[in-house]
Amino acid sequence: MQGEPEVAVLRLGHRPGRDERMTTHVGLTARALGADRAILAGDASKSEGTVADITDRFGGPFEVELTDSPKAVIRDWAGRVVHLTMYGERIQDVETTVRECHADGEPILVVVGSQKVSFDVYEAADWNVGVTNQPHSEVAGLAVFLDRLFEGRELDREWTDADQTVVPRATGKKVVPADEE
Amino acid sequence: MQGEPEVAVLRLGHRPGRDERMTTHVGLTARALGADRAILAGDASKSEGTVADITDRFGGPFEVELTDSPKAVIRDWAGRVVHLTMYGERIQDVETTVRECHADGEPILVVVGSQKVSFDVYEAADWNVGVTNQPHSEVAGLAVFLDRLFEGRELDREWTDADQTVVPRATGKKVVPADEE
Repeated sequence: MQGEPEVAVLRLGHRPGRDERMTTHVGLTARALGADRAILAGDASKSEGTVADITDRFGGPFEVELTDSPKAVIRDWAGRVVHLTMYGERIQDVETTVRECHADGEPILVVVGSQKVSFDVYEAADWNVGVTNQPHSEVAGLAVFLDRLFEGRELDREWTDADQTVVPRATGKKVVPADEE
Repeated sequence: MQGEPEVAVLRLGHRPGRDERMTTHVGLTARALGADRAILAGDASKSEGTVADITDRFGGPFEVELTDSPKAVIRDWAGRVVHLTMYGERIQDVETTVRECHADGEPILVVVGSQKVSFDVYEAADWNVGVTNQPHSEVAGLAVFLDRLFEGRELDREWTDADQTVVPRATGKKVVPADEE
């Protein structure tokens, strides 16, 4: 988020034709819950387009990009790397340390896999973190991790250059042009 | 969770062949993050089977079932109904009230849609709640909602009748038979 060290989300293992929705949801969740950037590995141009389109309509700042070299992204990251995996240490045991590193100025790269993640990612990460040690969803794990990293501040972030804004309502839907907010 | 009023998750709008993975992730997220039951509307037997299989292997208690009458499930719910939607009130504004109702003994039904949710669901819900008013993922919204409803207690829940257990590790994977934990 603005005024904080960068938080980026790296999505590994995208399989075109199979993973479009999951990868899109990873990207949209990263954007909605306070990350600054999503980096999608492999041929994920369709998901990239959807995330960019949402950013155009609902605001930023948020970047989405593709990479053919996810391992280089991890290796060259100038900060700390968190790999979310059901095999990792419990989030409740490591979140304070990660939060302190981020507060001390360290950019955080959050790595989320798809089906199978190679062992060198486990070794390259500063922390392997489990949002529970149960099998569920990389999207759910990312969401809980970001909400805890930012301690809810992401829910109050402001959006710039939006075309439209949703106005919270008890019932029904209200969407207004962004400049009428 | 055991010893608390029931929390169930109702998944609306499943489209066979398109939504299998999203619906499965909704069910697995419900299980992993403290809900007692997932109710899947429509022909979601494939997702139901996957969630039941994970429960067999990694433990419960957790129930997953199908319904052809999601509106009856909402209408007949003996407790409070929360509908997660990007158009709803901000979670940070309503979560305390929902939590208090649950602590006072009210079962909670959490309704998550797919693409489009009909207006009578908005009207039938006690609260329409937005985990941000941004478009992202029903799985992410559900995850953050449950983590906040339970205030992290779900991360410490115990599992019974598991075949296998993942042991948290800083690096690598360790899975043991459940009775050797």
